Amino acid sequence: MSVTPEAGPSIGESILPTDLPARSLGWTLPQPYFNSPEIYRLDVERLWRTGWLFAGHSCEIPRTGDYFLVEVDVDSILVVRGESGAIHAMHNVCRHRGSLICDEPCGHVAKLVCPYHQWAYGLDGRLLAWRGMQPDVKKEDFPLLAVHVEEVEGLIFISLAARPLPFDAARACFGPLARPQGFRRAKVAKCVDYEVKANWKVVWENNRECYHCNVNHPQYIKANFDHFNADDTTPKIRQEMSTVVRRSEEKWSADGLAATHTETGMTRFPDAEHGIWFSANRTPLVDGWVSETMDGRQVAPLMGDYRDTDVGTLRMRALPNFWNHSSCDHGVSTRLLPAGPQLTRIRVWWLVDEKAEEGRDYELSKLMPFWQLTSEQDWVICERQQKGINSSAYQPGPYSSFKEYNVEGFVRWYLEMLKRSA
Amino acid sequence: MSVTPEAGPSIGESILPTDLPARSLGWTLPQPYFNSPEIYRLDVERLWRTGWLFAGHSCEIPRTGDYFLVEVDVDSILVVRGESGAIHAMHNVCRHRGSLICDEPCGHVAKLVCPYHQWAYGLDGRLLAWRGMQPDVKKEDFPLLAVHVEEVEGLIFISLAARPLPFDAARACFGPLARPQGFRRAKVAKCVDYEVKANWKVVWENNRECYHCNVNHPQYIKANFDHFNADDTTPKIRQEMSTVVRRSEEKWSADGLAATHTETGMTRFPDAEHGIWFSANRTPLVDGWVSETMDGRQVAPLMGDYRDTDVGTLRMRALPNFWNHSSCDHGVSTRLLPAGPQLTRIRVWWLVDEKAEEGRDYELSKLMPFWQLTSEQDWVICERQQKGINSSAYQPGPYSSFKEYNVEGFVRWYLEMLKRSA
Amino acid sequence: MSVTPEAGPSIGESILPTDLPARSLGWTLPQPYFNSPEIYRLDVERLWRTGWLFAGHSCEIPRTGDYFLVEVDVDSILVVRGESGAIHAMHNVCRHRGSLICDEPCGHVAKLVCPYHQWAYGLDGRLLAWRGMQPDVKKEDFPLLAVHVEEVEGLIFISLAARPLPFDAARACFGPLARPQGFRRAKVAKCVDYEVKANWKVVWENNRECYHCNVNHPQYIKANFDHFNADDTTPKIRQEMSTVVRRSEEKWSADGLAATHTETGMTRFPDAEHGIWFSANRTPLVDGWVSETMDGRQVAPLMGDYRDTDVGTLRMRALPNFWNHSSCDHGVSTRLLPAGPQLTRIRVWWLVDEKAEEGRDYELSKLMPFWQLTSEQDWVICERQQKGINSSAYQPGPYSSFKEYNVEGFVRWYLEMLKRSA
Repeated sequence: MSVTPEAGPSIGESILPTDLPARSLGWTLPQPYFNSPEIYRLDVERLWRTGWLFAGHSCEIPRTGDYFLVEVDVDSILVVRGESGAIHAMHNVCRHRGSLICDEPCGHVAKLVCPYHQWAYGLDGRLLAWRGMQPDVKKEDFPLLAVHVEEVEGLIFISLAARPLPFDAARACFGPLARPQGFRRAKVAKCVDYEVKANWKVVWENNRECYHCNVNHPQYIKANFDHFNADDTTPKIRQEMSTVVRRSEEKWSADGLAATHTETGMTRFPDAEHGIWFSANRTPLVDGWVSETMDGRQVAPLMGDYRDTDVGTLRMRALPNFWNHSSCDHGVSTRLLPAGPQLTRIRVWWLVDEKAEEGRDYELSKLMPFWQLTSEQDWVICERQQKGINSSAYQPGPYSSFKEYNVEGFVRWYLEMLKRSA
Repeated sequence: MSVTPEAGPSIGESILPTDLPARSLGWTLPQPYFNSPEIYRLDVERLWRTGWLFAGHSCEIPRTGDYFLVEVDVDSILVVRGESGAIHAMHNVCRHRGSLICDEPCGHVAKLVCPYHQWAYGLDGRLLAWRGMQPDVKKEDFPLLAVHVEEVEGLIFISLAARPLPFDAARACFGPLARPQGFRRAKVAKCVDYEVKANWKVVWENNRECYHCNVNHPQYIKANFDHFNADDTTPKIRQEMSTVVRRSEEKWSADGLAATHTETGMTRFPDAEHGIWFSANRTPLVDGWVSETMDGRQVAPLMGDYRDTDVGTLRMRALPNFWNHSSCDHGVSTRLLPAGPQLTRIRVWWLVDEKAEEGRDYELSKLMPFWQLTSEQDWVICERQQKGINSSAYQPGPYSSFKEYNVEGFVRWYLEMLKRSA
Repeated sequence: MSVTPEAGPSIGESILPTDLPARSLGWTLPQPYFNSPEIYRLDVERLWRTGWLFAGHSCEIPRTGDYFLVEVDVDSILVVRGESGAIHAMHNVCRHRGSLICDEPCGHVAKLVCPYHQWAYGLDGRLLAWRGMQPDVKKEDFPLLAVHVEEVEGLIFISLAARPLPFDAARACFGPLARPQGFRRAKVAKCVDYEVKANWKVVWENNRECYHCNVNHPQYIKANFDHFNADDTTPKIRQEMSTVVRRSEEKWSADGLAATHTETGMTRFPDAEHGIWFSANRTPLVDGWVSETMDGRQVAPLMGDYRDTDVGTLRMRALPNFWNHSSCDHGVSTRLLPAGPQLTRIRVWWLVDEKAEEGRDYELSKLMPFWQLTSEQDWVICERQQKGINSSAYQPGPYSSFKEYNVEGFVRWYLEMLKRSA
């Protein structure tokens, strides 16, 4: 009676990496990587179910019993604050007949009670009660299936893997840089959900270059230096960058907030050769900008440990699904979740200090536009690119070695992940 | 010219039962049974196109030329009252170019005339006229393709099989119990259509246990004893049940309406070992309830042969798509139709005596809520379970031997059906 | 760096014509031809991507830089008026990352600039500028992929084939008959787009017979003789036809507008044996009708070279996607585009003389109904037939040799096309 029947065959197992379409270095991926159901299954199995996924912020579940759901392809994951204050993550699937346990995307519960037959689980997933079951089955054998969870400075990451990759290096990277931002003492001012009709890699490739920024992101390029590259960083731009870096270095070193990215162009990420899927840095803004807002002015109270506005921007990213840009007064997190070969669910959060009050300390109309515009401009671009890639005329094109080095790096990292056995 | 070309290959034929995922006795089915297109095809071919399907009520087509359509997966079936008063069933597909003949879900016709080129068929499906056809083809070779049809006490069943299972035993079972309910002299007070995003087996498994009733069906458990089982039938409950059974036996034996289910818990159905796909019984309600209504009171005139309200409830069920609960004053039929691996179309009918008039003899607001609530509560449960089953974390779980014996019985019956050659 | 990686495997290549379901002469095609994704892929690859497709009218893009898009299955084709007045056609897919270049279905551009990274192409598709690319890639290697284009008397045809079929015979056929209609000096009074839930062959089969006209197109049969055939052309009808033909012959021969179809019934088209995919003729209308309008009266100024209303009708057709009926005062073009096994996108245009002004010279309410009704009546018929064909009970039926000779001809032409290697 306690024998667990075998699961059905895995779709991905029948597709070996040797069957994958070949790719030339420096050229975009062939079409099937962007629209075939088979490669999407591989992506889910070899990458989304093995890596560390950004789930949300610890400030979203402050009290014992607070929870939110994360939908990764067909999987519904429950992230819940447990009795001891620890955060637990587990599959939102009852071990009896498979019903979802929680319906609402977030909420508060005393216990996790399946609405079908009221099997009751603790916040740590242990099965506590099952009215009406016979004595020859044991409750201990039916906990909710655990998902690995890690928290670093208020950022919650989960892994669906049986044996996840080590998280230590990511913690060492994010911890010191993120600490002063104070996400543990933050609150969500707003979050917006998008359904983008594009493969998740289309979205990442867009994120990994600022070649498209000049025309598409007029507000972004006013505040930043990263759309300039080796081919178009003029002496004047170089001078401006040097000025803000020098000022930052003097100021921030006194505050322990050293700039760690001091050139034009984007920092190199990811690093396929060393399997690096996370990175963070602190970067100055252009002179006169203290926050990534429409006019560069502060729009909310200082966050975390910051004592004045001149802290540049904290930037973090983690593959396959997270990036964050944070200014002195607010942070913006973006999370991708795959929902099909040509569908990506994206959430963008705006965070401010936990004591800030809307209307008194900040206005959404000033807090949101910079990243709402930048994000939505990108989603339009991604959907338009996906349509073109679907054409029978699509064929791989060449990357700019000046401007798309990180896109190439992303693709190499991706293909390395795909080659790993599931 | 009269050679009929071969049809395309059948999808199901390439999947042998030996390829089906294995299942352990007493555990839920593996995921592919609930969401794979291949197993859905098998279900349609081996089960829906071989068994007897409840189609509707004879009172819905009282006059010659009245018809309704039944959509079974991709098949549109015409059920029509013929010249002699007999009921005919046939595929709603013209033998010329394949057009549907009737568009509307129900209606009245003199003949069955294809709207494309006016090939005209009789109500029995014979081709009567085809303007413009050459003499070397013969009208006799092109009748509408017949579907088997049986009627028992106002309930119409159809079978798409070339050689259907015998219907005699089902007739012998339903006939005597259903006769006094008088469905032949009934009328439809209301019917409601639902699209439930769940595999049809999820809906049946829900139907085959009352383990979920306590919390999910507060109105149902007030009227009935079947949510109690061996593990929770207290002496007090046993006493209450005995009281109503005893009273019923005295009363009904005098009227020829003997209770045939006299215990707590649901009657055992189906019986996989003996291939029993139909069952019926008469069951008492709790003391004070004379009808399955919100307060237990009569809400419409007595039906059929009943002379007073104290007749308990008639219950019928037939796999794969029918159940009915009928009280002294009204009957409720439920019909399932498969529309995809994760989509089931469900119709619920409320029937009353043919002479009853809305407003004068009954109000829908009193007639409907008991079963409308119970049904819709179940559809929510089913859709939530389907979502969980789709998770990569879903794995078969154990049934309660006290409370889910009929679910286990349903699954065994289903697997037996699937093993049969198409 | 200039090596283009191989594209993914083509789906169609694995399906040989020998695998196709067999068909008997004079009978409709088996079901998979109308709904299987595999045969739809074959249709696209062997037929839609090899033949000449009607794209639109030259009067829709009068000025240099005017363009419109044509969506053929997954392909977006740009048709644009170039510098020299020549018409160019090319894939609307940037050679860099594959983004669509033009979003809007029609418009005006100075150059073709990709909205993603501003790669700029000339109106002839040559890559003119790509900011930020390294010197070891050459602009000459990255033009927009060309599509063949031909114009004949204001009608634009494109071919996605690498080596298209010859167009000369089609030009020789359409040119003399279409010239007096003056489509080059026309304007679009209105166009309407439809999404018809039917395989594109269902739509063509409907177009290739008037067996269905008597009941379904009451306005059409008042104006025309082609719904009569050998089996039902009475002496009276023959007399009426002779009268209009004789009058036409006298009149038109003087004007160089000889009637080329002078019998009842539709002209024979296509001709599978000789691979004829185009045809045109001039046909008289019934006495009293000078235009295909609801009452037969003229509804707009004379078009082209016509000097009075008595010119009968010009009729053109080209497989796989075009037909046109033109009267003295207006022309109606219909274009099919495949969008899935059971989805066809259809556009219908109404054209009038370029100098005609709505309100002054014509009213849409008088111009449109004849062909809007006829078209929409047919789309309803097609969708109803598709539903029936999807039934498991569908099996091929016999064509009328009197009335469906052109449907049989279409099917034979289609099967010949399918047998060709891609």
